Amino acid sequence: MAVYTEVSDEDLKAFAAAYAIGEIVSYKGIAEGVENSNYMLQAASGTFILTLYERRVDPADLPFFLGLMEHLARAGVPSPIPLKGRDGQALRTLCGRPAAIISFLSGMWPRRITVDHCAALGTALAGLHRAGMSYALRRENTLSVAGWRDLYGRTGTAAETIEAGLGKMVAGELEALAKAWPAPGALPAGIIHADLFPDNVFFLDGKCSGLIDFYFACNDFLAYDIAICLNAWCFEPEGAFNITKAHRLISSYGAVRPLAPAEKSALPILARGAAMRFLLTRLYDSVNTPPGAMVKPKDPREYLKKLNFHRGVTDLSAYGLS
Amino acid sequence: MAVYTEVSDEDLKAFAAAYAIGEIVSYKGIAEGVENSNYMLQAASGTFILTLYERRVDPADLPFFLGLMEHLARAGVPSPIPLKGRDGQALRTLCGRPAAIISFLSGMWPRRITVDHCAALGTALAGLHRAGMSYALRRENTLSVAGWRDLYGRTGTAAETIEAGLGKMVAGELEALAKAWPAPGALPAGIIHADLFPDNVFFLDGKCSGLIDFYFACNDFLAYDIAICLNAWCFEPEGAFNITKAHRLISSYGAVRPLAPAEKSALPILARGAAMRFLLTRLYDSVNTPPGAMVKPKDPREYLKKLNFHRGVTDLSAYGLS
Repeated sequence: MAVYTEVSDEDLKAFAAAYAIGEIVSYKGIAEGVENSNYMLQAASGTFILTLYERRVDPADLPFFLGLMEHLARAGVPSPIPLKGRDGQALRTLCGRPAAIISFLSGMWPRRITVDHCAALGTALAGLHRAGMSYALRRENTLSVAGWRDLYGRTGTAAETIEAGLGKMVAGELEALAKAWPAPGALPAGIIHADLFPDNVFFLDGKCSGLIDFYFACNDFLAYDIAICLNAWCFEPEGAFNITKAHRLISSYGAVRPLAPAEKSALPILARGAAMRFLLTRLYDSVNTPPGAMVKPKDPREYLKKLNFHRGVTDLSAYGLS
Repeated sequence: MAVYTEVSDEDLKAFAAAYAIGEIVSYKGIAEGVENSNYMLQAASGTFILTLYERRVDPADLPFFLGLMEHLARAGVPSPIPLKGRDGQALRTLCGRPAAIISFLSGMWPRRITVDHCAALGTALAGLHRAGMSYALRRENTLSVAGWRDLYGRTGTAAETIEAGLGKMVAGELEALAKAWPAPGALPAGIIHADLFPDNVFFLDGKCSGLIDFYFACNDFLAYDIAICLNAWCFEPEGAFNITKAHRLISSYGAVRPLAPAEKSALPILARGAAMRFLLTRLYDSVNTPPGAMVKPKDPREYLKKLNFHRGVTDLSAYGLS
């Protein structure tokens, strides 16, 4: 839930005048997303999303993100399209923050995940990866192995507060991941979404109608994106891993972009890494979210459990692979 | 900022099927309002607001509120219209809560109040009061003099925590208000909005295009509603009372429904009472908002200052009246 920046109607009118979208007749803060301020805009010409980029987004990365959305949308991925103003620019400033208007996508993100959602997700993710191949810009994944160590150093005593001995376990696991992580070039790489949680995927009439929130997108192993999705989509609310969901996700993905044997073999370590990445950001947020921030910090324990599941995987059949 | 109840798409579809609004293509939680959960709905037939009534609203009052909105809208007040389902009912249940779909109103609430906003507000408020005269249902104001005492009793040590001696001052002021408060029948009474803050009033092209959030509406002195608006609209952000704004508000109101001399004379005491009402609910919220409630409690001191301003008023010229 997030609206960090309160935009006045005068400021919004002046901002919107740079675009050919007609008069703004309404705007309402959206209680979704935790990184940026988002407003739903009603203009004479239709509905749009206005995003003000808050401190977690590096302004230097915005041309990469906005360019990527446009590239993907042109390639047929159901991603939002950044609107260009009359000056040809998609990125400008509102209330002292970088801001952009993007197209509105119909559809609803699933609160209860079904195996069919996982299948549609796999197809959409592979489509995103294929379309990303021709994107010219690059962005390193700052939240991969090296970034995790740095992030862990900034979580203070959060791990120990959550569970005695957790700090030592995380430190050990970080070392193990650094040793076992695939070397650059070992696996197919390209543009990944890197944050494709259910609230970033819209469905309409059973079909995937929208992929949003590309503000963690970067270049990394494509299979790492699958690993992130395995964590975000295939665990049941009570914590059990649903092999059928994993199987449908991976096989639907593979029908669009077949997975190399090396990618399949790497899934357990990639899934451990993906679980570590979200465990660490949640640990970080648990100690760095000020009270009254109007964002409920997510529970790090959820990702600790997921990490432990993947640490116990000895065989790809755990993911529904033969 | 508030979405207390997370609605699943399946539940929403089943709920919306009772209405003739077509397929739901999107819904997003709105980061506005603090009492209920609000979603902006995009359906095949247009845009609507879905409200789930949370614990602060007494379900027994909902027929009064929904009936009032419909009554006012039919009388030309720019209020939302509750949609009726195919069964003729506007009120039903979603996720275990009373819920309704109301029409969407264009317009934006003003973040920076101008004298013209105050003038338009006065006209709209008088129109609301006139249209309310013919509404058949009644609802007592539970947040008037008697209710304040009760509320104060539930604020614990909040007043003392905020300022030493404030508890005693509030207790004394409550006694003074009880003594000086106009007797029933002493002033024109009828339906009042009772919470007409700037975020409940939409403007479009300089005109008032919407009055929303009728969930405090009740029967009381009409001039008490003006007093609430004087507090909510006529103080500058730094705390100074803007006589010009007050004058425009009251004179625009009077052009639609002329104020009786007794109403004008009662304004200082009504404004003290209105300031007390919001001081008390803010004190109450400051001790009763759990951490992580995703609602930032509003500062009680703001209304303490307003109360003190009105306590010092000796002459109606302080409100721009001669």
